[in-house]
Amino acid sequence: MAVLPLLTDDQLSDKARAVFDDIRATRQTDYVNNFWRALAHNPDELEAVWGRLKRIMGPGALDPLVKEMLYIAVSAANACEYCCHSHTASARAKGMSDEMYSELLSVIGMASHTNALATALQVPPDDAFKA
Amino acid sequence: MAVLPLLTDDQLSDKARAVFDDIRATRQTDYVNNFWRALAHNPDELEAVWGRLKRIMGPGALDPLVKEMLYIAVSAANACEYCCHSHTASARAKGMSDEMYSELLSVIGMASHTNALATALQVPPDDAFKA
Amino acid sequence: MAVLPLLTDDQLSDKARAVFDDIRATRQTDYVNNFWRALAHNPDELEAVWGRLKRIMGPGALDPLVKEMLYIAVSAANACEYCCHSHTASARAKGMSDEMYSELLSVIGMASHTNALATALQVPPDDAFKA
Amino acid sequence: MAVLPLLTDDQLSDKARAVFDDIRATRQTDYVNNFWRALAHNPDELEAVWGRLKRIMGPGALDPLVKEMLYIAVSAANACEYCCHSHTASARAKGMSDEMYSELLSVIGMASHTNALATALQVPPDDAFKA
Amino acid sequence: MAVLPLLTDDQLSDKARAVFDDIRATRQTDYVNNFWRALAHNPDELEAVWGRLKRIMGPGALDPLVKEMLYIAVSAANACEYCCHSHTASARAKGMSDEMYSELLSVIGMASHTNALATALQVPPDDAFKA
Amino acid sequence: MAVLPLLTDDQLSDKARAVFDDIRATRQTDYVNNFWRALAHNPDELEAVWGRLKRIMGPGALDPLVKEMLYIAVSAANACEYCCHSHTASARAKGMSDEMYSELLSVIGMASHTNALATALQVPPDDAFKA
Repeated sequence: MAVLPLLTDDQLSDKARAVFDDIRATRQTDYVNNFWRALAHNPDELEAVWGRLKRIMGPGALDPLVKEMLYIAVSAANACEYCCHSHTASARAKGMSDEMYSELLSVIGMASHTNALATALQVPPDDAFKA
Repeated sequence: MAVLPLLTDDQLSDKARAVFDDIRATRQTDYVNNFWRALAHNPDELEAVWGRLKRIMGPGALDPLVKEMLYIAVSAANACEYCCHSHTASARAKGMSDEMYSELLSVIGMASHTNALATALQVPPDDAFKA
Repeated sequence: MAVLPLLTDDQLSDKARAVFDDIRATRQTDYVNNFWRALAHNPDELEAVWGRLKRIMGPGALDPLVKEMLYIAVSAANACEYCCHSHTASARAKGMSDEMYSELLSVIGMASHTNALATALQVPPDDAFKA
Repeated sequence: MAVLPLLTDDQLSDKARAVFDDIRATRQTDYVNNFWRALAHNPDELEAVWGRLKRIMGPGALDPLVKEMLYIAVSAANACEYCCHSHTASARAKGMSDEMYSELLSVIGMASHTNALATALQVPPDDAFKA
Repeated sequence: MAVLPLLTDDQLSDKARAVFDDIRATRQTDYVNNFWRALAHNPDELEAVWGRLKRIMGPGALDPLVKEMLYIAVSAANACEYCCHSHTASARAKGMSDEMYSELLSVIGMASHTNALATALQVPPDDAFKA
Repeated sequence: MAVLPLLTDDQLSDKARAVFDDIRATRQTDYVNNFWRALAHNPDELEAVWGRLKRIMGPGALDPLVKEMLYIAVSAANACEYCCHSHTASARAKGMSDEMYSELLSVIGMASHTNALATALQVPPDDAFKA
């Protein structure tokens, strides 16, 4: 359960409806997932978050699929249940193969392991890393 | 400062020395960074961690540079000072451009933002995400 | 499901019952939420945690509603499912409006975003911040 | 040390300089802190982050000082060294008294304590919290 | 729900089946829990993770029960729902009494409290702690 | 640097001085570490935190050394620089051997690894774990 009701299409303000229209057009599907239905209580924030997500996650110097895998990595480290689900589904939709997902999980596991060791040991950064 | 002294080359056990030799051969540099010098107090763990890192971070279904960027993403979310430094340096050495780094930071920032919102709102995962 | 059974009123020790009585009197409601029913297995800890919570969350230099919003902020960052639910409900009960909640979410999102950037970049604190 | 050099005023692009001008005008001080000097490598992101921060942290349904204290709370939970320093300094500048800071720390400590307990115990959210 | 289907015994590859056989023999029970059924999609990782877990969590300088309690402590701090459940069950099976569990929770709560304070205050480590 | 000045002995209030006296008597050393010198700005909180720490970390169903190792585990997972230093020093002082510390690090690393996997995969807790 969410701390706020998830808004159905007929409960949207005009501004929120326009964002939902853009989500549907951009993703070429009628389905709008729960995250946006929770954010829709605040149409300004809904518009701002969707606008940035659309811009940042699109093509650029990094491939959109790589960006989805980066999103999964951050979401796992931040223990975000919803985002692990939604971005794994997005990465699958963008072509993440079983082999890619297996390697992604291995890197997430490895990084979490050495993050914990370096922090427990309080290893000082090398002078060689200095910018 | 570390909670343990960082071992110099002449303080290594035979097993730790062999791992350092492999680090140097694999990376084609004489430089061995502080993390391994802290781990070298426990040669079995040193060998195991290095062995897995070498295998996981090598080429596969994902590019080694993509893996380094995933490592940075996890390290930032876990607030690991050392790993942010070391893996940003590694990613640079593997060809991460300024444009790629800028987009990486944008994705890390975006994911951290929506992770926090989805968690605060406790948005329930959609049935559509079910495996 | 919890890792321990949630105790019903008739399963409480005398000490735990006295704490439940004080929770009911302080909050002016007969309802005692699940957190306390899980803690009640250890009446000493139950008494200590409730006592501190009652003291800290009461009026002082900060308004009790501000304190509830701070609690939500920490709970979201720590990814505590239960506490996001319980303290959002408490903040609502203490008068948090929709507008206040929207701004709270915006600050939580913004802080999570720049926390991640400052950590990824390992920005050194300015001398100007020195105490 | 940062993973990127901190840009001095004479190293800024035109776009970054315009943002720095707005930071100075908004805060009514010539001092621009390190965070913005690290972000200035990416003028578009600099502009976007500053723009949102300026809008979100300004007056609204919540007082700007309350927002700074919420920022400290999130930053402490996310273990962001830089942000703990910078936002404590900002809160002081906006009028946070010693008494307010003491209570803020008490709430952060209390929330971190019960977050850990509720998570360890996996207490299920009460039906009474349902939106 | 998991992001991947949990594999049943008749869906296992030969390599995964061999790992399940070893889990059953080591734990002297026919029951194999969900974590391994999710990992079984990648038999190499399944084998590697189980092999390390079996070695690390066995007897040594630290008692296996102490190791399970350390695992609970890390899992609570990392907000891992599954691991809080599974390792609390394991610790119970290895003899953790109610008194031990109560003290474990008190230490987890205390550490989370002072971690947050030390981070918010950015207390510098004492020279006396230097290795 | 801390966000507050660390108080020297001659800057303490009477109440803070009494706590410092008790720290010195309990630990049988004249040295009082920085954490308490930062907390001393708020004598009530200083007294409360020290009192609980003294009670919780003393002998009970768990050995004081085990408690210190649990504290290190939580502190590493929470990325608390100060607490990793201070509690590793405390554990050493209470008899933690090199072998014990090596195994502690292995458990912290292993738990961090599987926490990340279980979270990324969103593995549902087994019915068998139900209390």
